[in-house]
Amino acid sequence: MAIKHLSKDSVEPPKVPGSLRFYSMRFCPYAQRVQLVLNAKGMPHDTVFINLSEKPEWYLKIFPAGKVPALIYDDKFLSESLLLADFLDKQYPEPPLQPSSPLQTILDKLVIESFGKVGTAFYKLMMTTKEIEKNNFDELVASLIPIETELVERGTKFFGGNKPNLVDYMIWPWFERLDAINPYSNGTFVIPFEDKFPKLAEWKSLMIADKAVASYYITPEKHAEHFTKKKAGLPAYDI
Amino acid sequence: MAIKHLSKDSVEPPKVPGSLRFYSMRFCPYAQRVQLVLNAKGMPHDTVFINLSEKPEWYLKIFPAGKVPALIYDDKFLSESLLLADFLDKQYPEPPLQPSSPLQTILDKLVIESFGKVGTAFYKLMMTTKEIEKNNFDELVASLIPIETELVERGTKFFGGNKPNLVDYMIWPWFERLDAINPYSNGTFVIPFEDKFPKLAEWKSLMIADKAVASYYITPEKHAEHFTKKKAGLPAYDI
Repeated sequence: MAIKHLSKDSVEPPKVPGSLRFYSMRFCPYAQRVQLVLNAKGMPHDTVFINLSEKPEWYLKIFPAGKVPALIYDDKFLSESLLLADFLDKQYPEPPLQPSSPLQTILDKLVIESFGKVGTAFYKLMMTTKEIEKNNFDELVASLIPIETELVERGTKFFGGNKPNLVDYMIWPWFERLDAINPYSNGTFVIPFEDKFPKLAEWKSLMIADKAVASYYITPEKHAEHFTKKKAGLPAYDI
Repeated sequence: MAIKHLSKDSVEPPKVPGSLRFYSMRFCPYAQRVQLVLNAKGMPHDTVFINLSEKPEWYLKIFPAGKVPALIYDDKFLSESLLLADFLDKQYPEPPLQPSSPLQTILDKLVIESFGKVGTAFYKLMMTTKEIEKNNFDELVASLIPIETELVERGTKFFGGNKPNLVDYMIWPWFERLDAINPYSNGTFVIPFEDKFPKLAEWKSLMIADKAVASYYITPEKHAEHFTKKKAGLPAYDI
């Protein structure tokens, strides 16, 4: 299915009755978080993709910050990926994506919070220098150590146990993009998953096979192409 | 009761059985958020105040980020004010501080999230320039408009309705400090609550009378003194 992002001078498509209106961008990792929850819950949703470089006037009118992801629920405009994921999990309890214990819930949320360092290091690597720099790459690799340790300590296939839960889905979008470093750098830099992060390597294979993840998966080559164009100041959103 | 913050070369005090270990700093608005929830819940807690300029080695060992607030629960180290508040509310359900509807819960969390702008504007006003600058003051006043509007639209005394809830407690610490602008600037700058934000003015009086808030309240003069010393590079924590 062709994906077209709406830009300036567009008109908001009419809402589909019985379906959640979801504002997204195909290459946004934060929007992907919410998409994965919608997929896992099997929630009917009707996606409007937003061109973040040429934001539609009608979108800025309903959301001056102009960010994605966002949802309309019961005529209320809702944003923030982690809050949206939490909301969807509570509003549509099956399958549950969070532990029932408050203690395990905060421990999970702290893992997601601490994962922010990986996201920051990845962005620094890909977007702030002309070419990939070795020290930034090393920093990114180092940021993965606590995540590997966490999964080893949990002793389960997924952070959620036998199945992915919110931790798995909230961090996944960056793992999909980590594999883009290889094609993006023409093979010069490759995250040593098998050697240094064997548990995460296994987890990645399982995640790619997960239905919610698989149906929205983009190849490393395609991600690399998006990053290259974005850095050149010509971001390409449509697929 | 005298409050003494622990510094370098200190030893962590033994934990008190049956009491939550709470790491705090007397003038930290984020720590105050958690303190207010502990107060509202009537939870026995044993506070260790941390000198954030001369952090104890033992604290950096258990929490390299060295931040407050933090709690120990069931031997787990927990941090992040909003996550801690959410955890305490779920772990100790009485009195409930969050709505039962997932939709109202995310709407409340989005209000707290959007309040971040007030915090940023306040910090900019107080800490980034030698004297208070008019444009920063105007920016801070403008940032309060959506909060006043939100309370007017809710049509209730508190954001939580007839009683304070997490929204009230999570934003309160900054309102306590907003009144410090007056003594801090020797009366040159005063937030025009009565004129421009009548609903928030009323809410402030009710909040100061709330038991959870009252028992941890610090006067504007005392806050102003703390800011003055902090800016001079000589932060004073003890009371």
